[in-house]
Amino acid sequence: MGAGGGGSPQIGLLAALQAIEEFGPVPLVDLDELPDDALIMPCGMVGAPTVSLEKPGNGWEGVWLRDRIEALTGQKVAALMCTEIGGANGCEPIGWAARMGLPIVDADGMGRAFPEMPQVSMHLAGIRPDPCVITDERGNVNVLYPTNGLWLERLCRSTAVAFGGRGVTSEYLMTAEQARTATVRGSVSRAIMIGQLIAESADDSVGKLLDAVDGVRLIEGKVVDVERRTTGGFVRGSVIIEGLRGDSGRLVRIEIQNENLVALEDGKVLASVPDIITVLDTQSAEAITTEVLRYGQRITAVAFPCDPIWRTDKGIESAGPRAFGYEFAYQKVEDIHELA
Amino acid sequence: MGAGGGGSPQIGLLAALQAIEEFGPVPLVDLDELPDDALIMPCGMVGAPTVSLEKPGNGWEGVWLRDRIEALTGQKVAALMCTEIGGANGCEPIGWAARMGLPIVDADGMGRAFPEMPQVSMHLAGIRPDPCVITDERGNVNVLYPTNGLWLERLCRSTAVAFGGRGVTSEYLMTAEQARTATVRGSVSRAIMIGQLIAESADDSVGKLLDAVDGVRLIEGKVVDVERRTTGGFVRGSVIIEGLRGDSGRLVRIEIQNENLVALEDGKVLASVPDIITVLDTQSAEAITTEVLRYGQRITAVAFPCDPIWRTDKGIESAGPRAFGYEFAYQKVEDIHELA
Repeated sequence: MGAGGGGSPQIGLLAALQAIEEFGPVPLVDLDELPDDALIMPCGMVGAPTVSLEKPGNGWEGVWLRDRIEALTGQKVAALMCTEIGGANGCEPIGWAARMGLPIVDADGMGRAFPEMPQVSMHLAGIRPDPCVITDERGNVNVLYPTNGLWLERLCRSTAVAFGGRGVTSEYLMTAEQARTATVRGSVSRAIMIGQLIAESADDSVGKLLDAVDGVRLIEGKVVDVERRTTGGFVRGSVIIEGLRGDSGRLVRIEIQNENLVALEDGKVLASVPDIITVLDTQSAEAITTEVLRYGQRITAVAFPCDPIWRTDKGIESAGPRAFGYEFAYQKVEDIHELA
Repeated sequence: MGAGGGGSPQIGLLAALQAIEEFGPVPLVDLDELPDDALIMPCGMVGAPTVSLEKPGNGWEGVWLRDRIEALTGQKVAALMCTEIGGANGCEPIGWAARMGLPIVDADGMGRAFPEMPQVSMHLAGIRPDPCVITDERGNVNVLYPTNGLWLERLCRSTAVAFGGRGVTSEYLMTAEQARTATVRGSVSRAIMIGQLIAESADDSVGKLLDAVDGVRLIEGKVVDVERRTTGGFVRGSVIIEGLRGDSGRLVRIEIQNENLVALEDGKVLASVPDIITVLDTQSAEAITTEVLRYGQRITAVAFPCDPIWRTDKGIESAGPRAFGYEFAYQKVEDIHELA
């Protein structure tokens, strides 16, 4: 569900499993189970996933965020929420919750991963982003009160770059009552469902996954070129996939800003943000995040519909192709491929 | 007293005079006049003075800092203090104080200006830098809790760069009782004395100034080269002065990081940080800050002793030549020139 972003799920999983082993399991709760005024702390990493590969956290960042938020608000944090349900960002908050004995809510702020801070459902719902708290593995803590989403992104990103390319943040604090309508609900359960399906599948894992998420196969092939730069707190670049088997002779390019943004073939858009473009290992159907793409991988690129909130006018304005500098209008992935 | 730094005093003076005209005069108070527990708010601009020349503040930044500090601490700010008594940073806090009806204390954190955040007497005295509050002319506010002085500098500088090259900050909050031993006292009075002396002088203004501050004339001449870059939130570069009249045939180079750091002649150090190197207009003895140095100016470079606090082991470690990457040991300016 990370659209190639959110950082390495392998590293995030290791961190979460180690914390669970040491501090015990983390309950998954529905927002309806929490009192209306329960304080929900969205959290996740910000920066370039390439950096997180080499410089993981120390596991306590989420605790430092919680401590600062409680000091600022005078309220107790009741539960954590993954800001994005993608990659390491779908796993690491579980480790932080384990350390604090807090539950994780079955929701997130995107139903996928996006590169920029205000690209969350809470922004669309009009929740204030501040105070935004950002920390690093050393214990530096900054509290940001930006004037708007643009400055949230700029100030958070520049802080993450100053930290060495990676920070851990919480913003868009809200009550459970607000979260019930301001988040993408059920996304943790959905991620677990996808994971179980792939883990239990003996063959045609990609096909089973596509059935489960109403997805489209964009190309099956081999990675023949990867261009990737870590710059300004993002991973930017592109990957070129050469078709194999039934797709022999085709070339598809996917363009990247932390996440897979668009898939193109001969100048034609096969899929674009806010829909979810994912590069899968052709055999196992495991997702390959953008920072570990490399020459020679046998992959299948797929796309599937984003949460409906991103298909509203405000959603497309915030995270559609034009929000990333593309000059074409958004078309739903199922509309592009209805004849196929 | 700014050693070429602190930003343009002309712009700072205009801002202060306009605020005083609108909101009334600002009392100058001695720290002994304030109750022991009175909260002192040091404040000033951070960033590259070249930027402040083109992008002045809106005058309310100091008020926004005060408001955030009072919300964070639950205490009322009793008085402002210039973090550094140099250039615009010796003037702008007066405008902010006028808006709030608060006094300015007759002290500062350096007795001069220095480029980096922890180069203050409060750091030497062991006062905590956090919370450091930084704002811009738009109303963005960040609160920093850095783990040490190095991270204070890095995080503040990167925030100032994200703001567009200039921020307004307060850090090293303290009580009047602490400030009595943790600041350079009487520096506002001293700046006023120097200003009056120059303003009232009809001839040999440079000579009178040197008598007043126990200073040394390094060279009288003409600026023949200026190399200046605005990079990483600093002005860096150097200026070359060719001697005139009695100094004909000499060439002196002054190296710059916001402030004048060292004056060199044929590889020999004529003066260095932490002593104060100042470039003066030869006729008027008015200081020329580093961002407005230009080819052809008729100037006299002078140097005079810093406050004794910078000549202690901790002071030299924090702001001596080696703190700026030079490989020579500090020598007092009067020792270098005792034979002259």
